[in-house]
Amino acid sequence: MAELAGRPGTSGGLALRTGQFVFAAASICAMASAPGFTNYTAFCYLIASMGLQALWSLGLGCLDCYALILRRDLQQAFLMSLFVVGDWVTAILSFAAACSAAGVVVLFKRDAYFCRRDPQLPCGRFEVAAAFAFLCCTFSAASALVMFWLLASL
Amino acid sequence: MAELAGRPGTSGGLALRTGQFVFAAASICAMASAPGFTNYTAFCYLIASMGLQALWSLGLGCLDCYALILRRDLQQAFLMSLFVVGDWVTAILSFAAACSAAGVVVLFKRDAYFCRRDPQLPCGRFEVAAAFAFLCCTFSAASALVMFWLLASL
Repeated sequence: MAELAGRPGTSGGLALRTGQFVFAAASICAMASAPGFTNYTAFCYLIASMGLQALWSLGLGCLDCYALILRRDLQQAFLMSLFVVGDWVTAILSFAAACSAAGVVVLFKRDAYFCRRDPQLPCGRFEVAAAFAFLCCTFSAASALVMFWLLASL
Repeated sequence: MAELAGRPGTSGGLALRTGQFVFAAASICAMASAPGFTNYTAFCYLIASMGLQALWSLGLGCLDCYALILRRDLQQAFLMSLFVVGDWVTAILSFAAACSAAGVVVLFKRDAYFCRRDPQLPCGRFEVAAAFAFLCCTFSAASALVMFWLLASL
């Protein structure tokens, strides 16, 4: 069980962190480049949540690099509990942000036809930002599940 | 670890299923009683997702009753895997539905001021339905975590 792919301090774990960071940063860039996003709470929350996710993933990615270079073992009960809590909090916040942003984008596009009525509204960028946020969530969920599985089988 | 509160076939497990079913049904009732909710994809998705959650919880609740009355043990690897998959799928769908509905409600109330402009819009009921959906999600998340923990420690 301790040989699970994606555990902290391995190249698999580092790949998961890199994926989280890249997609969170891409989501922030797409949303920040859309003029007028600050008028919508769901999109501001997406930026805040993806920012937290990017910072957390960057920190854990650096820790993975340190463990890989110096061949340290990160699978200690205290560290694992910390990783589990952090991963679950960031994963849940990211997923909530992605879902609420997607709900608002669908409303704009399909329900209220705001995108058709107001061509100035950057609906395409809102969509891309939400899509990147969902991609970030899949990597984040993978990390959170691996951590929880490792903690449960310690 | 096998004595974890809320495991299937115990009164704790039955309480979790009852909570899920009650709040999912309450969310459906609140949303269905709001006229015009069918115009919004996020609210239709909330009804569908809460319906699935209610059916799943009702089924598992009946199984818990059966196990409690006949003193059967439900903690077998095959059954647990089935419960884990079902619980995670319903929990994720419910949370996504609750978040997207909440995103749209916040947009209506705080960002676009639809609730103030159109007093016919039943914003209060939309809010109550989203709140019940989040309560349902907390019970659902508890079940999903207990199941995953039990499966990991089998």
